[in-house]
Amino acid sequence: MSYEEFTIEGRNAVIEAFRSGRTIDRLYILDGCQDGPIMTIKREAKKQDCPVKYVTRERLDQMSDTGKHQGVIAAAAAYEYAEVEDILRAAREKGEAPFVFLLDNIEDPHNLGAIIRTANLAGAHGVIIPKNRAVGLTATVARTSAGALNYTPVARVTNLAKTIEELKKEGLWFVCADMDGTTMYQLDLKGSIGLVIGSEGEGVGRLVKEKCDMVASIPMKGDIDSLNASVAAGVLAYEIVRQRIQG
Amino acid sequence: MSYEEFTIEGRNAVIEAFRSGRTIDRLYILDGCQDGPIMTIKREAKKQDCPVKYVTRERLDQMSDTGKHQGVIAAAAAYEYAEVEDILRAAREKGEAPFVFLLDNIEDPHNLGAIIRTANLAGAHGVIIPKNRAVGLTATVARTSAGALNYTPVARVTNLAKTIEELKKEGLWFVCADMDGTTMYQLDLKGSIGLVIGSEGEGVGRLVKEKCDMVASIPMKGDIDSLNASVAAGVLAYEIVRQRIQG
Repeated sequence: MSYEEFTIEGRNAVIEAFRSGRTIDRLYILDGCQDGPIMTIKREAKKQDCPVKYVTRERLDQMSDTGKHQGVIAAAAAYEYAEVEDILRAAREKGEAPFVFLLDNIEDPHNLGAIIRTANLAGAHGVIIPKNRAVGLTATVARTSAGALNYTPVARVTNLAKTIEELKKEGLWFVCADMDGTTMYQLDLKGSIGLVIGSEGEGVGRLVKEKCDMVASIPMKGDIDSLNASVAAGVLAYEIVRQRIQG
Repeated sequence: MSYEEFTIEGRNAVIEAFRSGRTIDRLYILDGCQDGPIMTIKREAKKQDCPVKYVTRERLDQMSDTGKHQGVIAAAAAYEYAEVEDILRAAREKGEAPFVFLLDNIEDPHNLGAIIRTANLAGAHGVIIPKNRAVGLTATVARTSAGALNYTPVARVTNLAKTIEELKKEGLWFVCADMDGTTMYQLDLKGSIGLVIGSEGEGVGRLVKEKCDMVASIPMKGDIDSLNASVAAGVLAYEIVRQRIQG
């Protein structure tokens, strides 16, 4: 993760960032630190549903650019997040059935950037990522998205399974990728659809998978386990594109 | 590029590496250096068709792990290369029509690794890369291939256009990816096929493109220029897989 540019260090700077409405991807606080300003920061973090990680002084020193972190470092998003509603509106404005990517804990910023790039070119209306554990919109993500972040809205939600529930009410169907699924060519992937992509190591989480209407597998003929996450997302997204084009 | 492990430094070590038959991806020689041992190394490089780059002392110092490069550093392949014939044999042994990836100057080791991974899982029989300009089988490539390098043969050739000519005699058809091509869903990609993927910045070179029988485009609905090279390779490869499966 790149901390340059988007790292905010020190108590006042972090409090100010929260109050100015700046989106903080994640907060790093010195473990055991309990004084007034830190408590204020924790309250702000809670209010804005921002994940907090308690770390050692060594870790903070390592992350710090200025050497003056005073026990707190905030990783700010390089880009502003959209709301899920913005994504649905984008689909409505184009007169298209919604096509949304949902990423279950993609941790590698290069993969996240490449997937946002793919979402843009496949004509998806937006990308939804979870707040916890996953990587946010860092500078590396922005760079590897090759500009797609300027066009494709990315929303961040607290609970991916709950968001799927809500979007089902909007008429979306959900397909996730997993090896035990039905070969993707045999599924009907037309219409309003959410494509759920899991993390490299663990795939799609159980709770999220249970919410999905379909499980799609990419046919694998080889000797190894799985495609790179961004390649798998591209292959599945383009099967959806093919079915949409060929009607 | 990672030089650890696979860097050979100093005159005797490099001469010995050549003579032992070790594959050298690229040779870095101090610009202007003309003495006996260096001339011997250059002769060996020429014999084995190994690309030579003339660089400044600062560059060599920077690349050097030992600080004792004596004006020459060789980047050895982390994996041994196969021959093109090995790839065709693999197809024959499986009783399948050959399916080969040809990569025109992929420079990013992460992309090369991800593409070899895709080639393995899409059931391709091998990957062909050019000797010049492209990245070789470095440690990073091996790691990002997620083990695929142990199974999927990678051959290195001097002239990709000439190799295409030769493989046409073996009955292969060639498709390259370019934005001005025919939408991939409308092409017949069944049978013996070579899939040509260009570099991120420049796409497929003119000479190579002229040798191709078909130019395929991936439909793009978005606002930016192109997919990540390894994603594009995955999307095209799986269109080939779909057509092969659905026969």
